[in-house]
Amino acid sequence: MLHLNQNYLKLPKNYLFAEIAQRVEAYQKAHPDADIIRLGIGDVTQPIPRVIAEALSDCALKMTQSEFFKGYGPYEGYAFLREKIAAYYATQGVVVDPDAIFVNDGAKADTASIIDIFQVEKIAVCDPVYPVYIDSNALAGNLGTLDSNTGKWEKVVYMPCTEENNFVPALPTEPVDLIYLCFPNNPTGSMISLEKLQQFVDFANQTGAIILYDGAYEAYITQDYPHSIYACKGAKTCAIEFRSLSKDAGFTGLRSGYTVIPKELVRDNLSLHDLWMRRQATKYNGASVLIQHGAAARFTLAGQEAVQQLISFYQENARLILQGFQQIGWHVFGGVNAPYIWLKTPDHLSSWDFFDYLLNTVQIVGTPGSGFGPAGEGYFRLTAFGSREKTLQAIERLKKQYG
Amino acid sequence: MLHLNQNYLKLPKNYLFAEIAQRVEAYQKAHPDADIIRLGIGDVTQPIPRVIAEALSDCALKMTQSEFFKGYGPYEGYAFLREKIAAYYATQGVVVDPDAIFVNDGAKADTASIIDIFQVEKIAVCDPVYPVYIDSNALAGNLGTLDSNTGKWEKVVYMPCTEENNFVPALPTEPVDLIYLCFPNNPTGSMISLEKLQQFVDFANQTGAIILYDGAYEAYITQDYPHSIYACKGAKTCAIEFRSLSKDAGFTGLRSGYTVIPKELVRDNLSLHDLWMRRQATKYNGASVLIQHGAAARFTLAGQEAVQQLISFYQENARLILQGFQQIGWHVFGGVNAPYIWLKTPDHLSSWDFFDYLLNTVQIVGTPGSGFGPAGEGYFRLTAFGSREKTLQAIERLKKQYG
Repeated sequence: MLHLNQNYLKLPKNYLFAEIAQRVEAYQKAHPDADIIRLGIGDVTQPIPRVIAEALSDCALKMTQSEFFKGYGPYEGYAFLREKIAAYYATQGVVVDPDAIFVNDGAKADTASIIDIFQVEKIAVCDPVYPVYIDSNALAGNLGTLDSNTGKWEKVVYMPCTEENNFVPALPTEPVDLIYLCFPNNPTGSMISLEKLQQFVDFANQTGAIILYDGAYEAYITQDYPHSIYACKGAKTCAIEFRSLSKDAGFTGLRSGYTVIPKELVRDNLSLHDLWMRRQATKYNGASVLIQHGAAARFTLAGQEAVQQLISFYQENARLILQGFQQIGWHVFGGVNAPYIWLKTPDHLSSWDFFDYLLNTVQIVGTPGSGFGPAGEGYFRLTAFGSREKTLQAIERLKKQYG
Repeated sequence: MLHLNQNYLKLPKNYLFAEIAQRVEAYQKAHPDADIIRLGIGDVTQPIPRVIAEALSDCALKMTQSEFFKGYGPYEGYAFLREKIAAYYATQGVVVDPDAIFVNDGAKADTASIIDIFQVEKIAVCDPVYPVYIDSNALAGNLGTLDSNTGKWEKVVYMPCTEENNFVPALPTEPVDLIYLCFPNNPTGSMISLEKLQQFVDFANQTGAIILYDGAYEAYITQDYPHSIYACKGAKTCAIEFRSLSKDAGFTGLRSGYTVIPKELVRDNLSLHDLWMRRQATKYNGASVLIQHGAAARFTLAGQEAVQQLISFYQENARLILQGFQQIGWHVFGGVNAPYIWLKTPDHLSSWDFFDYLLNTVQIVGTPGSGFGPAGEGYFRLTAFGSREKTLQAIERLKKQYG
């Protein structure tokens, strides 16, 4: 008799952002005239650069001609794009072999599915953390049981990121299989120094752990911090890196990202690169050729300039939000090397209470910190991805209400 | 100490089409001047219709304007596309709720990943069969051990499709959890009658099994056969259907497909639709909005006409191949309701011997039947997806060599 994957029953019913969407929808239904400002989900709002749109359009129209038509592409993506990505790494002082790169349809899919190639007994995550790392492992049955009192899973080593450690985690307190790191950090907006990151790399090489490094927001770094884990010595024998075009080039809707699995990465005498290639060959058919052409345009000189303008725009939003909150007298973090502002909730409100409070008083939607993990309780995330108009409106509303 | 997913070691080293690519590459290297004709992999060759290209181009250029820009879309795909797909089903006499549809980036990903939501103890597959059904389960550790003598997995019920049963399988000989069916069939090119398909539906409803119905080639049906499993009574309580835009609208490179999970489909008191939605929310971020606009154009009147021209083109290829082989005196099947021609190898050659023989004598690449399963031994698959010129050339070469 067929049964369903019982691990689905162990998960809290809703994915965080689905829960937020439901609460906002309910509020909007009850208040049809309310002008809700959404600074919750990390979704960009600015249109895509023309150089990218034209590359997409050109490729689409060329596909009507036999000589330009493309069918199935390489599972790992076209060399023309992988070479551009490697060249982009080089501008950051990091050598990445184009053949170590897998192009995908967004970093989320790979960060969630990379565990396919492992036999996972224990993972370490930052707390708070982007929910996908935990949830994908939970659905795969890797995490044991969830303690409903603490909100913690049995087989997870939580690395608290708090005000005390400047939101940079200490090393795991015991050996683990996988260490998830994300810098610039989602949700706290913090960065990690090269020295501290090197400690993680050394720990992983000593214990045999693999670091899964999520660099989705690397383009937002403004200060002297590493853009890639491969800036650390020895990282290629212990780390997989994920990157995305979503947050810098506006691809949240178009879908494009890439994963680096160095050929030096070997466990059980097997190349992880080979295993992932086999996984992709079995369960994926490569990223859309059209989107790959658009992605390649992002890495041209014109594309890079356009992306820098987008980043600067969102960075200015972040600066305005930070400044506004400081004027109100709120305690805020992040926002300098990341598009996320991490706010300590005023009056010791719980994260969800503050969510409801903001929605009800000023019709602003953010993300409850507790949705990212137990140590996120009492915090709240706002994003710099809004339009300038909405961002300024939000700040005005908040100042008027709380200032 | 971290270990890798040991199930990867149980798989034969290469995915079928990767093995073919390697042999062809080796041959080409040794014979740089050889003009190889590829009728192996099921990849289309004709350019995409202009109506689709223009929809893609329009959407790309509009994305440069704030009012048309789209970020993250719904996990299940946009309603504008799901409604068009439901309307397409309606033209085939089948009622499908738009909300039962999940848009994806190609049917392969969903056919391989759908097992995420199940606890699979035993599956039934046609033999021969599209390798992805078996391989995805093998990587997930669902199949026990592979008997290297028989080429059969421990926990798979093989349903032989042979000349004796006209390549239509009998019901599984024991209860199973999942039954994979694909009609028009890959690789044999056969079709199943409504009556026979109804027997599978009744069997599934009686035993609690789920049918995973792969309809990637439904547009190739020319005779009186069901286009969808939902043409059967009771199919909505036992069947998930996968479809693709790859083989009819030329999307092998663009990537688009869809999966239907009826809301009536319930096991363990849980809605499979809800479970898959949760899976997609955790591990996927929706299909590219751009590609969804291109896909929607395929379902317009103009798109449907253009697709019919493409299909007719490949159907004529199939007819020419069938006719040529019959003139040679070879024993052939399929090709009437499917883009695949299934050939009994002459002189009792093994499938791979015939592969090497064809490559060496006439530089034609096909797919060894044994790559699709034990009962495929002694057969060989050719596709109708070549250009007219290459297809005619291939037939001429074969006639000259063997006629």
